Amino acid sequence: MSAHALPSPAEDFSAWYNDIVYRADMAAQSPVRGCIIIKPYGWEVWEGIKSALDRRFKALGVQNAYFPLLIPESYMRREAEHVEGFSPELAVVTVGGGKALEEPYVIRPTSETIIGEAFSQWIQSYRDLPFLINQWANVVRWELRTRPFLRTAEFLWQEGHTAHADHDDAEAFTLQILDVYADMAIREAAIPVIKGLKSDSERFAGALRTYTIEGMMGDKKALQCGTSHNLGQNFARVFDIQYLDASNQRQYCWTTSWGLSTRMVGAVIMAHGDEKGLRMPPRLAPIQVVIVPIFKTDDEKTAVMESVEALRAELTAAEVRAHVDARDYQPGYKFNDWEMRGVPVRLELGPRDVQSGSVVAARRDQPGKEGKRTLRREQIGAQIKLLLDEIQANMLALATAFRDANIIDVASYDELRQVVESGGFARGWWADSAVNERQIKEETGATHRCYPLDQPDGEGACFYSGAKTRRVALFAKAY
Amino acid sequence: MSAHALPSPAEDFSAWYNDIVYRADMAAQSPVRGCIIIKPYGWEVWEGIKSALDRRFKALGVQNAYFPLLIPESYMRREAEHVEGFSPELAVVTVGGGKALEEPYVIRPTSETIIGEAFSQWIQSYRDLPFLINQWANVVRWELRTRPFLRTAEFLWQEGHTAHADHDDAEAFTLQILDVYADMAIREAAIPVIKGLKSDSERFAGALRTYTIEGMMGDKKALQCGTSHNLGQNFARVFDIQYLDASNQRQYCWTTSWGLSTRMVGAVIMAHGDEKGLRMPPRLAPIQVVIVPIFKTDDEKTAVMESVEALRAELTAAEVRAHVDARDYQPGYKFNDWEMRGVPVRLELGPRDVQSGSVVAARRDQPGKEGKRTLRREQIGAQIKLLLDEIQANMLALATAFRDANIIDVASYDELRQVVESGGFARGWWADSAVNERQIKEETGATHRCYPLDQPDGEGACFYSGAKTRRVALFAKAY
Repeated sequence: MSAHALPSPAEDFSAWYNDIVYRADMAAQSPVRGCIIIKPYGWEVWEGIKSALDRRFKALGVQNAYFPLLIPESYMRREAEHVEGFSPELAVVTVGGGKALEEPYVIRPTSETIIGEAFSQWIQSYRDLPFLINQWANVVRWELRTRPFLRTAEFLWQEGHTAHADHDDAEAFTLQILDVYADMAIREAAIPVIKGLKSDSERFAGALRTYTIEGMMGDKKALQCGTSHNLGQNFARVFDIQYLDASNQRQYCWTTSWGLSTRMVGAVIMAHGDEKGLRMPPRLAPIQVVIVPIFKTDDEKTAVMESVEALRAELTAAEVRAHVDARDYQPGYKFNDWEMRGVPVRLELGPRDVQSGSVVAARRDQPGKEGKRTLRREQIGAQIKLLLDEIQANMLALATAFRDANIIDVASYDELRQVVESGGFARGWWADSAVNERQIKEETGATHRCYPLDQPDGEGACFYSGAKTRRVALFAKAY
Repeated sequence: MSAHALPSPAEDFSAWYNDIVYRADMAAQSPVRGCIIIKPYGWEVWEGIKSALDRRFKALGVQNAYFPLLIPESYMRREAEHVEGFSPELAVVTVGGGKALEEPYVIRPTSETIIGEAFSQWIQSYRDLPFLINQWANVVRWELRTRPFLRTAEFLWQEGHTAHADHDDAEAFTLQILDVYADMAIREAAIPVIKGLKSDSERFAGALRTYTIEGMMGDKKALQCGTSHNLGQNFARVFDIQYLDASNQRQYCWTTSWGLSTRMVGAVIMAHGDEKGLRMPPRLAPIQVVIVPIFKTDDEKTAVMESVEALRAELTAAEVRAHVDARDYQPGYKFNDWEMRGVPVRLELGPRDVQSGSVVAARRDQPGKEGKRTLRREQIGAQIKLLLDEIQANMLALATAFRDANIIDVASYDELRQVVESGGFARGWWADSAVNERQIKEETGATHRCYPLDQPDGEGACFYSGAKTRRVALFAKAY
């Protein structure tokens, strides 16, 4: 741990973020432009996100597969909008095995094209539908401005691709995945994301509809945490994905795609961190409980360490991820260190606790309230599990209250400007218009985040144009 | 499923292998040179291997991390032997974001160099040791002759890298990992691999010692399934990985590295497959039980499908991976199809079974003996779990008997030639000699596979040179 103080997130959120990522050992800088090394403490958060999603995907009948890292350059030209979106971001392999390649390969920015071609070969009949595939993989996009986890030249993600017999089935599946994303974000990451529909100008090129989950970060800016696209028949036409229907007619499939990346690790950091450092939601915390032994003499040490080891074993048996900090540092130093890393529960155990059969617990979730309490050692595993559940619920409640306090209804462009200036999401009636969106973005820096799926009844006047409309939208500055 | 018959593995193992990989839907060909698409049925086998290893690594205290895909080209030149080994195999990125790069990047053939540099920064003191890191990742080596799973230009693997305070700790860890690999291969994949030490000429460039697990495939050839290297202080010197010892002296670390790849999926196919197709060991089988409903009339169908669904639910509740084949094909076709895919247990359920509360089970493990038996429906989950355990054990026993029958002791070069010609592993006293190894390889095609860790007592005369020696070695043709 470096010696300087952590920047205050209230004063300079960006400096705070960059500092905490490295100081909490989530990542390390790498010698590769725009790429980080994900260290174990960051990797385990990603593993948690990954297994939470994978379980949910499989319950929907999605199967995992793996497609090649490299894509023939010509594939990227098949789909005009695709090229336009990706070509400035491509890493190109021109030499292989010591020789210049006749046709270069690009490192996948997504596997869309190669999966599209595979679908066209694999799908024959309506009996094959729905066809549900997901891939966990690394992708590369040559981004100019990068930030750890949020935007890196290489990142890890899952990309799902599905084919359906008709529009409604594709649409229903697109929304099922959106529910999976939201459920993971809310239950596991304790981030009360808002499910919504992207505006026409923000939707994925070639999609009918793009749905998003938007999270509010600690600086009140928005982070798009995952997207689910209903691609209609557009991609099926480009890649010739057809099936024979029940009456033996050839039809184009209706496809979807959806992705969520290591950016979500950045969301966990930014949604919950505070002036002391990270706050890890228990369900994703690599270490849920840290045990700090406290002793002065060697005799005390022997008794305390024996009791600490028994405690760790009990917690492990109860499937709590517990860690003993046996380092040769003062307890105060250790307390700060684990607070900085955001471990949800710290247990302190000294000679008097050994004698009295108790342990002191401090929780990390409630900023400003350390909430120390003394627990009896009996049934400690069950007690700690309850405490972790309570912390998980409290973190979600705190994040939800923060979000709700910072979504401000606006009835005019002036009101929106004020919200954007003081921070938060502006919510107002919005008559869809790409031109007006662009204007707002240029003048305020805020973008159309989504039309929340949860809409009020009735209609109102667009806060910008005054036109009558039936939908409200959220605008905010975003990552 | 294509209509032509599967080639006979006894007549043309290689043609059989290439055919079964695609017909059993383990993989598909891809438009990328030397790369395959791993389809769900193959991917799930890899997921099984991965989680079996990951669990074991974590129990040893190994932590996962993730390092960049791209490596500055200059890094590859740091270590002379490293360059020599890898440079003809590199894929080089020369263009990024539309511009020629000042320094090209190579796609990692391993992460050795970038992890070495990270270790030099992260490790400070003896308190940091042992330092145990693993990475699950894709790597690219521009291989000229490729075969699905066994040798592909891109493959997936884990690479572990550890640093230790002294030789003995590094050596002990190298062997612990070898045990983990062997335990996974034997218990999960039912492949009775032999743990051994590579000869000087077969060991990893720069290592003190390379240990291997060698499996015998169905054609009696050897497949190296995983390797664990004690790197001594060689890599630590190249990458300057030092620590302060307890008396405050700087010391070079002792490092290890170890890897196992998607090649292991090929091992499962080749160790167990037969003339009917794959045979999946239950613990790695994507589908452990397939249920085939049998009916003629619509009334029968209603009753049978209801019972089949209840059966599937019971099996799923018992954590058996069960699949219902409700496709619109004749039962006979389905039987062949699932036999080809190697599903360990097939359950047939028709109207009479529904009435009598029973189900017919056929097992796939014993070639030539279908072993149909009628099971009562009561406690079917527990019965099937026992049956799966029995099949797993039987597959290991069959593979072990096959292996032992095909390891032949040789006392002369002539005897070795005969073994190599008729197939199998030749075992004989061997006085280490790179020159003699090369001679044998050139003349017979067989290579030194390993000195098995399990050695006889005493000494003998080298079967080739006649020199006295205390070690026996295995020679065989290998993949």
